[in-house]
Amino acid sequence: MEERREVIGASVRRIDAFDKVTGYAKYTDDLCDKGAYIAKILHSTVANGKVISIDTEDARKIPGVIKVVTCFDVPKNYFPTAGHPWSTQESHQDVADRLILTDRVRFYGDDVAAVIAEDEVVASQALRAIQVQYEEYPFVLDVKEAMEEGAPRLHEEYPGNVLKHTSIRNGNYEEAIKEPGLIKVEGWYDTPSVQHCHIENFICYAYQVNHKMNVVSSTQIPHIVRRVVGQALGIPWGKVRVIKPYIGGGFGNKQDVLYEPLCAYLSQVTGGHLVKLDVSREETFACNRVRHAIRSHIISYVRPDGTFAARKLEAFSNQGAYASHGHSIVAKGMGAFPQLYPCPNVEADSYTVFTNRPVAGAMRGYGIPQAMFAVESHTDDVAKAIGMSPLEFRRKNLMPKGFVDGFSKNENYEDTFGQCMDKAIAHTDYVRKAEAYSNQTGKIRRGIGIAAFWYNTAVWPISLESSSCRMVLNQDGSIQVQLGETEIGQGADTAFAQMAASTLGIPLEDVHVISNQDTDLTPFGTGAYASRQTYVGGFSIQQTALLLKEKILGYAHEMTRMPAGILNIVDGMIVRKLDGRELLSMEELALEAFYSLSHSQHITAESTYQIKSNAYSFGCTVAEVEVDIEACKVKLVDAVNVHDCGRLINPALAKAQVHGGMSMGIGYGLSECLKFDPKTGKTLNGTLLDYKLSTTMDHPELKADFVENYEPTSAYGTKALGEPPVCSVAPAIRNAVFNATGVGVDTLPLSPHVLFEEFRKGGLLDV
Amino acid sequence: MEERREVIGASVRRIDAFDKVTGYAKYTDDLCDKGAYIAKILHSTVANGKVISIDTEDARKIPGVIKVVTCFDVPKNYFPTAGHPWSTQESHQDVADRLILTDRVRFYGDDVAAVIAEDEVVASQALRAIQVQYEEYPFVLDVKEAMEEGAPRLHEEYPGNVLKHTSIRNGNYEEAIKEPGLIKVEGWYDTPSVQHCHIENFICYAYQVNHKMNVVSSTQIPHIVRRVVGQALGIPWGKVRVIKPYIGGGFGNKQDVLYEPLCAYLSQVTGGHLVKLDVSREETFACNRVRHAIRSHIISYVRPDGTFAARKLEAFSNQGAYASHGHSIVAKGMGAFPQLYPCPNVEADSYTVFTNRPVAGAMRGYGIPQAMFAVESHTDDVAKAIGMSPLEFRRKNLMPKGFVDGFSKNENYEDTFGQCMDKAIAHTDYVRKAEAYSNQTGKIRRGIGIAAFWYNTAVWPISLESSSCRMVLNQDGSIQVQLGETEIGQGADTAFAQMAASTLGIPLEDVHVISNQDTDLTPFGTGAYASRQTYVGGFSIQQTALLLKEKILGYAHEMTRMPAGILNIVDGMIVRKLDGRELLSMEELALEAFYSLSHSQHITAESTYQIKSNAYSFGCTVAEVEVDIEACKVKLVDAVNVHDCGRLINPALAKAQVHGGMSMGIGYGLSECLKFDPKTGKTLNGTLLDYKLSTTMDHPELKADFVENYEPTSAYGTKALGEPPVCSVAPAIRNAVFNATGVGVDTLPLSPHVLFEEFRKGGLLDV
Repeated sequence: MEERREVIGASVRRIDAFDKVTGYAKYTDDLCDKGAYIAKILHSTVANGKVISIDTEDARKIPGVIKVVTCFDVPKNYFPTAGHPWSTQESHQDVADRLILTDRVRFYGDDVAAVIAEDEVVASQALRAIQVQYEEYPFVLDVKEAMEEGAPRLHEEYPGNVLKHTSIRNGNYEEAIKEPGLIKVEGWYDTPSVQHCHIENFICYAYQVNHKMNVVSSTQIPHIVRRVVGQALGIPWGKVRVIKPYIGGGFGNKQDVLYEPLCAYLSQVTGGHLVKLDVSREETFACNRVRHAIRSHIISYVRPDGTFAARKLEAFSNQGAYASHGHSIVAKGMGAFPQLYPCPNVEADSYTVFTNRPVAGAMRGYGIPQAMFAVESHTDDVAKAIGMSPLEFRRKNLMPKGFVDGFSKNENYEDTFGQCMDKAIAHTDYVRKAEAYSNQTGKIRRGIGIAAFWYNTAVWPISLESSSCRMVLNQDGSIQVQLGETEIGQGADTAFAQMAASTLGIPLEDVHVISNQDTDLTPFGTGAYASRQTYVGGFSIQQTALLLKEKILGYAHEMTRMPAGILNIVDGMIVRKLDGRELLSMEELALEAFYSLSHSQHITAESTYQIKSNAYSFGCTVAEVEVDIEACKVKLVDAVNVHDCGRLINPALAKAQVHGGMSMGIGYGLSECLKFDPKTGKTLNGTLLDYKLSTTMDHPELKADFVENYEPTSAYGTKALGEPPVCSVAPAIRNAVFNATGVGVDTLPLSPHVLFEEFRKGGLLDV
Repeated sequence: MEERREVIGASVRRIDAFDKVTGYAKYTDDLCDKGAYIAKILHSTVANGKVISIDTEDARKIPGVIKVVTCFDVPKNYFPTAGHPWSTQESHQDVADRLILTDRVRFYGDDVAAVIAEDEVVASQALRAIQVQYEEYPFVLDVKEAMEEGAPRLHEEYPGNVLKHTSIRNGNYEEAIKEPGLIKVEGWYDTPSVQHCHIENFICYAYQVNHKMNVVSSTQIPHIVRRVVGQALGIPWGKVRVIKPYIGGGFGNKQDVLYEPLCAYLSQVTGGHLVKLDVSREETFACNRVRHAIRSHIISYVRPDGTFAARKLEAFSNQGAYASHGHSIVAKGMGAFPQLYPCPNVEADSYTVFTNRPVAGAMRGYGIPQAMFAVESHTDDVAKAIGMSPLEFRRKNLMPKGFVDGFSKNENYEDTFGQCMDKAIAHTDYVRKAEAYSNQTGKIRRGIGIAAFWYNTAVWPISLESSSCRMVLNQDGSIQVQLGETEIGQGADTAFAQMAASTLGIPLEDVHVISNQDTDLTPFGTGAYASRQTYVGGFSIQQTALLLKEKILGYAHEMTRMPAGILNIVDGMIVRKLDGRELLSMEELALEAFYSLSHSQHITAESTYQIKSNAYSFGCTVAEVEVDIEACKVKLVDAVNVHDCGRLINPALAKAQVHGGMSMGIGYGLSECLKFDPKTGKTLNGTLLDYKLSTTMDHPELKADFVENYEPTSAYGTKALGEPPVCSVAPAIRNAVFNATGVGVDTLPLSPHVLFEEFRKGGLLDV
């Protein structure tokens, strides 16, 4: 492999760093002409019901209002919103249950009408002037209640509001639990709805030109948005063009089609005029997507020696009002269950249930943060029940080296968990502290906890995994690189540039990654999700770079008369392998290739790589806390994540990725939770003032470390890192509180309200 | 060849017609954000000299002025401006004689300073506030004077102001003219400076983002602009990106790099801010490019039987102040001389000479309109001298069927001239009228004239001829097509779409041509000139379409298990050749190819075609005039062009092309002429009020007809049509006036001023 170790594995500066820091980088709002019409959405103020009538007369009279459209005006093309690649098998397609605007409203915040106006002030005035008459139905916010007989039904096709139920049956649970001497440990573990809180709210603009509907959107999935806009408007997909500029984070919220169809429709009805649709932070909380709140019931039958005889899981996932990513989330968590702690007898059932709450979709970790909270909290419960230390129990039971999953063919090539935990406990002095903290009294107590996580990479074999890449040689010997994989702030472009430079053999500064995706021009890719991009993109980059290299050396053969097989590209020079002699520069070759009067050739390469493999990506968190029992407050004083994400392309970027995910996990563990008014279904704390997003003020200095087991199936030895960092933080904190107080808190977040109840029940408070 | 006759040769509506007529089509100014800074240029008010000092203090004080830059601030990187592809041989490279701004000024209108301001009003005020001190030199406007000893020298490296002198020597002229009985015919033929008068003035804007200088420009040659901006700023070409949107005509003015380097520089010096530079119509006349004014001296020695014994040509081309396209223009005209009327003994010399006039560059016809005026006027003079009719003389002497040019290898496969003239005289009743009009008296006379023209296609073997094309299959079975060849209003995109649809076998509406070129993304192409696009682009479209078809049928083979060799694509369906059975649609195939879980492939094709052939494109004009002798006015009452441009891709578009070129030729013949103040060198009539641009009010209904001799070297049988229509109109008008009056007017345009002198000398006026 023509790789240069100096580029791969080097902490090079992000290629977009200068532009982003200095303000040169353009985001969607920067790119939108100031002459755009402004669109605003009128949201439902009932949680379940039907629009009887909408009076827009007053709104339309306001000077500066261009048009008002209602749920009665829009085309009745149902479309799905999930950021999943299309499937030609109908049974595998996502549920198409959204309309551009709806008269059947299913959550407080649903979309019933929209205003197009000359500016934001007029648009807001017009919204206030619209009068809607609803017929209200009873509503349900809780999963258990939604599944009961007689509960309000959200979608006619789904009795009991169950979108889907899947199960795993390994071995024979019912028989296995009859084994004598087993200890039963049971728990209910509850995770909340949280929101992504990316810095840039969703925004898009649309305009019609040249027979095409053009949409510029802050999205993770431009090619999928294109398809869905076509479906929603009922026009051929080839007549829709979607452009994705730099975006200010997504974390999965933008891995759904949000308001691009509505915005495109509003452009259509104004004769193709430029229309901009920008959502507020409040709308982001209530009217975009949230993480599925999942309630897990785990029963473990364990032997006194610490081995599992049988295990059972029931997971109930709160889908909210519409299908979006649907059952995939809880199913992924359920899939981890029999693998993280292999056990021959497993019964698992997962249910995804509609409720009249904001729609749940993809959010960093995709079901694994919820599952790891349940599973790893339960692990400490089990360890306590049999008198084993949490660390020893994990060393004994976590997936061992050599484990192979029959369905995905993923293989655990090393003792990854052992290696990661070794590093984590070395960083934190875990063993000594866990012992020291285990029998405290007093009002302020320390605790230290550990949790592991299971993750995989990309979505094969569940869904299509495919990545296309195009490279173009410029006259000055530099190259352009285009992929369908998207930079969403995570530094993907930098990693791609490093890979391309490495395989091709040219300096990093000669690789120009085209950062914006444009579905007219960019090779097809499904987008940024499933922590797939470095793994999946790596394949197509390597393949394409090798194709380009072959063409370049073929042309060099013509120019130098040396056989292509003895030539190589090193540092941007065509060299002879045998003696390293530099024959000519890439720039000289490129100029000749472009402008030769005898053989002119524009040297490019483009290829698609379809991935039919997957890779485990494991790790763990150790967290140390200080608990103020009386105040019911937890302060995080130390935290480290250790990851086996294979080979690090860029260690500095990888560390930043981990820190970001840890921060999300800390908020998930300690403070973040969306609350809903039981009387109206309204989101109560959907602002950055009321929603307790974790910030650097709430963190100690976060530590990240790595175990680099190069992934054998991977083009560059890499595995997933985008989502893993968030997966084991909350349970590590919960287990640290357990270590400090002896109280296992099974509800997230560990906020003072929750701790008050739990400490009281645990006898720690005199109330 | 998988061609569908229904698409090729059909007068389909232009694919951009709806958008252009309704205003959806975006041009450069539409695309520029309203927050751009406005740049304006301060032009020299001396025709030859040096800037001693520039006082910008008052200008800088005006509120709203961002910056003022002068010739003393800019980098001293000389760059060429000609729209010629780069050559790796230094001797073949264009002369690099321009600076972004210059202190050595060489024509009235040269560029000495520039203002960047918040709006146009402030920019204009600031221009007026700048004070320049010049040292004035003597100047020269006439070519003959410029060549004289002691004339002011414009460029140190060019004594006698001769940019270049080339010659042709065939046979032995000096010996041949000694043959007894030869009749000598001699004439001086003079053509003026004219301007392109495209509807959209040149405009560009520039901004720096993501380590790149971005330039959006109304240009015909985006890839070449990119290279020259890199040269001018001294930055790698890979760090410049040029986008060409729809443009409102170019006709060769925009086949030069005009103000993109200056605009990019102004963006650089304002920290990468968006800067827009829009030139006025007056600046377009004086400070862009004009057609070379060429004075030709022709001597023919002809036998009484009408055959040529020897011919001599001297052509003097007025280059103006800088090199631009330089000697190529007059050299092309000189190249036509020994071919149009083959003669064994030819002596030809052409000189391109600098003068202190606006720069001459490319303009529709590229030297041939000038050469045809001289040659075809001379032909009628020769015919008269030996008492033969102009038609008979041409039938006897024009290039016959079978003629092959040794250098270019072009071959005249048919009796093209005979066929074209036959049609033209049939349309106009030429023979009868030419006879009837030949002996008139009276003050109002009719006349009818004929003229032929020589033209070729593209620029091989002189320069690189290469075209790249990329096609991408969309999920709905439609395709995207991208080429480096540019739509400049001539309908190229429509022709390309027809070719692609035809070769691939899909409906025309399923072909989406990406009309804007973007040097980051578009396959390389040298641009719109030399009437090359249909010929050259046709090769790469056909080749790429066949590659794409091969991939599609290969995938169809996988899906259907039919051998690819028995499959075809017809009307967007995959069919079996043998029985025509439709197996599946392109849409079904595309969906499967994109989303297959077993074999996903993004189907694209990209290829470069290097053209090493050329094709003659001939034709003629017949014009009928009414001459008012006393008023010295000529009115055109009938005109027809007949063209052999090979196979017509789109007859309606071809006719429109011919009408447009005829209109240009009519203006050239009758009214258009730039005038310069002999005292200052200033362009006197550089406005659309004073410059007599020909309009539909001055034309009769123009007629166009075709002789379709499919070009054997061409992918679709096509040959040049962009420029030919302008080439023979002016001499046909001149010859009609000759027929009417007996006076051969050898100066264009045939304006009243000129006719007054000529009619007086010819004895037609009693003054």
